[in-house]
Amino acid sequence: MQSDDGEDYHPSDGWRMRHHHLQKGQLWERICAEARQDAMMEPRLATFLHSVVLSHRSVEAAFSFLMAAKLADSMMLGPVQIMTIFREAYDNDPSILEAGLADLQAVIDRDPACSKYSQCLLYFKGFQAVQCYRVTHWLWRKGRKALALAIHSRVCQLFDVDIHPGARIGRGVMLDHATGIVIGETAVVGENVSMLHHVSLGGSGTGRGVRHPNIGHGVLLGAGVIVLGPVNLGAGSKVGAGSVVVSDIPEHCVAVGVPAKIIKCTSKGE
Amino acid sequence: MQSDDGEDYHPSDGWRMRHHHLQKGQLWERICAEARQDAMMEPRLATFLHSVVLSHRSVEAAFSFLMAAKLADSMMLGPVQIMTIFREAYDNDPSILEAGLADLQAVIDRDPACSKYSQCLLYFKGFQAVQCYRVTHWLWRKGRKALALAIHSRVCQLFDVDIHPGARIGRGVMLDHATGIVIGETAVVGENVSMLHHVSLGGSGTGRGVRHPNIGHGVLLGAGVIVLGPVNLGAGSKVGAGSVVVSDIPEHCVAVGVPAKIIKCTSKGE
Amino acid sequence: MQSDDGEDYHPSDGWRMRHHHLQKGQLWERICAEARQDAMMEPRLATFLHSVVLSHRSVEAAFSFLMAAKLADSMMLGPVQIMTIFREAYDNDPSILEAGLADLQAVIDRDPACSKYSQCLLYFKGFQAVQCYRVTHWLWRKGRKALALAIHSRVCQLFDVDIHPGARIGRGVMLDHATGIVIGETAVVGENVSMLHHVSLGGSGTGRGVRHPNIGHGVLLGAGVIVLGPVNLGAGSKVGAGSVVVSDIPEHCVAVGVPAKIIKCTSKGE
Repeated sequence: MQSDDGEDYHPSDGWRMRHHHLQKGQLWERICAEARQDAMMEPRLATFLHSVVLSHRSVEAAFSFLMAAKLADSMMLGPVQIMTIFREAYDNDPSILEAGLADLQAVIDRDPACSKYSQCLLYFKGFQAVQCYRVTHWLWRKGRKALALAIHSRVCQLFDVDIHPGARIGRGVMLDHATGIVIGETAVVGENVSMLHHVSLGGSGTGRGVRHPNIGHGVLLGAGVIVLGPVNLGAGSKVGAGSVVVSDIPEHCVAVGVPAKIIKCTSKGE
Repeated sequence: MQSDDGEDYHPSDGWRMRHHHLQKGQLWERICAEARQDAMMEPRLATFLHSVVLSHRSVEAAFSFLMAAKLADSMMLGPVQIMTIFREAYDNDPSILEAGLADLQAVIDRDPACSKYSQCLLYFKGFQAVQCYRVTHWLWRKGRKALALAIHSRVCQLFDVDIHPGARIGRGVMLDHATGIVIGETAVVGENVSMLHHVSLGGSGTGRGVRHPNIGHGVLLGAGVIVLGPVNLGAGSKVGAGSVVVSDIPEHCVAVGVPAKIIKCTSKGE
Repeated sequence: MQSDDGEDYHPSDGWRMRHHHLQKGQLWERICAEARQDAMMEPRLATFLHSVVLSHRSVEAAFSFLMAAKLADSMMLGPVQIMTIFREAYDNDPSILEAGLADLQAVIDRDPACSKYSQCLLYFKGFQAVQCYRVTHWLWRKGRKALALAIHSRVCQLFDVDIHPGARIGRGVMLDHATGIVIGETAVVGENVSMLHHVSLGGSGTGRGVRHPNIGHGVLLGAGVIVLGPVNLGAGSKVGAGSVVVSDIPEHCVAVGVPAKIIKCTSKGE
């Protein structure tokens, strides 16, 4: 596909920095500029924007601070503990931040209701839940399952987005609206995937092996889509809202219905 | 339709005060009487009922106080700020309160599980989310989009009801149970509309113009209904639970299924 | 059905303690052992695990403490009030705890992603919401409806699980993931029922009598299933994800689709 900026690119190829994407430093400058403007235009938000954005030195510092305030509770983990865990994750594994910045760019690229990076960073619970998942997944891989599950439960309660720390999720993912999304323990989600609220990537049966779906690059899952069991959704495929998918979908095909049936297949990028 | 009280009235005509509806002052007296009785019967709730209802002078003062306590967080907006914003909205635009009282009456008229005005006011997150929307929409129209989006994000997290501040919603609306409801930026919802939990009025495509549905007066949307794109649902139409609507529905017709098909059309009020 | 441990048992028979199930005392010892191990392996959780588990003498004391911390808010009911209500319920009606322990065992038996009792007790909002329901139902039956509805509204907001205090729910119930589940006022749910997230047991019409479903023992309701009106789902029946059920399903039958159609019926336990 020839995209707007003349690049030969299709989301089903996987994540790639594109001409119009911002480098990390530029992106942080942009977020600060947006926050300064909002603070000036809306003094009621000035204290918030200063404490959450403008008093920090990097996007990962700001975001760790924000999540610390949101996820902390009086009983389980205090804000300093949460912030420390997030900072450790970002420091130890640079791919977490790289993926997070790709997710941020993905929302700007794909959501017509979002024109500001700061809006996504500060307010979108789908974006925030994915970043929390990235940290719990890091804990999970390091064998710190008890801590991963504790934070996961707090995220489920707060955002109503339930991504198991064991799932694997690529870069450039957008969870729009996000309420009610469930992604199971052995699910694999590729890069550039977009899913709307109430999407489930659920398990079938009670076997102990892989029991959840495998979602290819650039897939779009409409609101309320339920995908069940270890099925494959090929790169670039699309599933219409309210569909139930219980079998494979080939690359670049469109499926709809309960159960979902393929209604169209195209060459890549058509 | 000849209704119970002998009025010639149908919800698809739009909102109207009916014989059995309470005027603002009567309604506030009723709420106070209910709260006094509950406080007497259940002393564990007495402090709450006094601080949230009985110590106030009007329904809008009580409700602003309640929302201040619910929406405030330690970081973004404190309770005094929230309460001030709600009071400003109610003072500046009397149609916000008028619409809210119609919403309250709508729940009493239509929800068989709710017999007390105070129960709806204090406990129903669908009702509370709509009132928060009415305030964020007032901010949005005044160009205070940053503040509108900040409060909107807080409401989404708290109630899991996602009504974009830009949407337009008429009087006498009931959101029953309400979890997971999503109403997009350019959606228009008429008067006397009832929708159950998990209803989505979603966008199609990424165009910048009108990309969400237009819902007529008196429409009923069952649990889990997804309406996608700039389609029209005529006044008095009904959509069965779990349906996906991607094309227009004429007035007073009933549609069900994935995708929804019209199964019946009637004269108004049959 | 001959189950793994040689017992002649099927979930549609109703709840029963089985050979591998733990007695109350054993179960509490197991939870404490799990908490001690997690506290040792993950010091960041040690304070939490001590205050919520290890400093208590029984599972009901620990759980009442946990719910007190979660449900308390600055305005409605403080932690001491919540804890007192839970303790009163457990003390007055031993069947509440018995049912709760059966629910805990059910999650271990049926959820392949949960291997620890403490994980379910501390983190699963579906389990926690059912236990809160059991307490509000006790209040409801004693005529303390105002208090039941107050706590119910807090649970809805916190967990996004909306179980009306008037519903009747048997032992050994599992609500998996749980976000968006709605169970109406006159619904009856048997024993050993499993339901996934977004399941609705909804009312039809506005009549004042029984207007919600009756779900038999051992029924399985997939993600997003909507059951509407006073229909009967026979013991051991299963409904596929995303289905809408508006008529009876016989015992041991499987139904799928919108509207759901029966695709298979078997002898018990086949």
